[in-house]
Amino acid sequence: MPSKTLFDRLRVILVAPRNPLNIGAAARAMSNFGFFHLRVVNPYELAFREARSAVGAAPLLAEAEEFQSTAEAVKDCTLVIGTTAIGPRRLHHPVRRLDQAARVIRKQLASSPVALLFGSEKRGLSNEDLSHCHWLLKIPTRDEHRSMNLGQAVAICLYELARVAQPAPKRGKHVPAAGADLERLTTLLMDAMRSSGYLKTQGSQAKAAGPATEEKIRRLVRRLHLSSDDAELTLGILRQIFWKLTSPE
Amino acid sequence: MPSKTLFDRLRVILVAPRNPLNIGAAARAMSNFGFFHLRVVNPYELAFREARSAVGAAPLLAEAEEFQSTAEAVKDCTLVIGTTAIGPRRLHHPVRRLDQAARVIRKQLASSPVALLFGSEKRGLSNEDLSHCHWLLKIPTRDEHRSMNLGQAVAICLYELARVAQPAPKRGKHVPAAGADLERLTTLLMDAMRSSGYLKTQGSQAKAAGPATEEKIRRLVRRLHLSSDDAELTLGILRQIFWKLTSPE
Repeated sequence: MPSKTLFDRLRVILVAPRNPLNIGAAARAMSNFGFFHLRVVNPYELAFREARSAVGAAPLLAEAEEFQSTAEAVKDCTLVIGTTAIGPRRLHHPVRRLDQAARVIRKQLASSPVALLFGSEKRGLSNEDLSHCHWLLKIPTRDEHRSMNLGQAVAICLYELARVAQPAPKRGKHVPAAGADLERLTTLLMDAMRSSGYLKTQGSQAKAAGPATEEKIRRLVRRLHLSSDDAELTLGILRQIFWKLTSPE
Repeated sequence: MPSKTLFDRLRVILVAPRNPLNIGAAARAMSNFGFFHLRVVNPYELAFREARSAVGAAPLLAEAEEFQSTAEAVKDCTLVIGTTAIGPRRLHHPVRRLDQAARVIRKQLASSPVALLFGSEKRGLSNEDLSHCHWLLKIPTRDEHRSMNLGQAVAICLYELARVAQPAPKRGKHVPAAGADLERLTTLLMDAMRSSGYLKTQGSQAKAAGPATEEKIRRLVRRLHLSSDDAELTLGILRQIFWKLTSPE
């Protein structure tokens, strides 16, 4: 995770949110990605109260700050970014695509607080709100359906901000099977193919058990990229199958 | 935006969703980012109906396909990815972080259908669901609060898939096996393991033939990344072996 301090400088600001579920979802995404400073501007009071008292509400909701105006809410921020779906409204601002925007925001967060503004569910940010913004950020949605759900938009923005600078998760240790195991597997599989009658050892119309077939099977076994454990498991299964195929009833 | 065809090959699969708002939110995010094939497995019927009839429901909800089992829902898919918050459950699968996963998924979408599975709100994906997956995908959330809201998780995954407009790279001739073939292979292998005595169906010290073993074998088969041709070859061999194991001398 990037440094806690860096994340600690972001203010997520919901302007005039109306749906308690969206407020709750925004807070949950913040908690998921490690951002804790939520601000609300003129929320629909009932919605804000409901969101706060909901079962399972993110603890950061209890500490959310409430403001009467956007100006007040961004006062301590050196960079203010508005989110937009770029609808019919004529835009007077430069617009950056989210991934480009995230890079700029991260840089700024290294030294000072940044505000990320989200408008109300119906109308988005007003021209007055936008006038407080340095520039705008756009999530690259489809032209035919640009407008996102508020909670989802917040989640995607925070995901993108948190995305880079994270160590890759530890992968399971794939220990590849040794050549000897693969060869044992090949031999055993050929034996089973013979015993089962899939391959005929002499004169017939069935598949021949010659070197070409053996090579084909050998290549097949190598294409499986078996781990050491999987090779052992498979050998065990095949051994039992072969034993059963060749044991008298 | 990447080609429409590419996006057209993704199946978003919600397993046992219970909340109509989440189903609706998942569908809305799909529409935002240009993915249209939604499948649901054993949804809570009332929730599914409500989501479909909600005001402003995404049109793609009306065409969502309903399935009785995960196996049925992934039948045409050559790559099946489960999403996980990596909770207490011990994972038997390799896990990729979303951005790494998205690159692999986009590559596969260039040639064949891919399933992206999301579990129910409360429990996530079951071990049975997971056993159908080739590997798992994890959204990099905070350790202290890993579990995301379903609608937000879907939105973030689709955002990441759509994010980079990469031209589809040329693939080698590896045509991956379809889910139905892999499932046939799993079943046949289990049958052979039982007939050979590798698995005991009842009371003994040998390995049990319960669901855990079946899931283990299902995962093994998925790890092999069989091509369509190799799956057919392997099925042929196994069929003959099984026939021989069960035919009277």
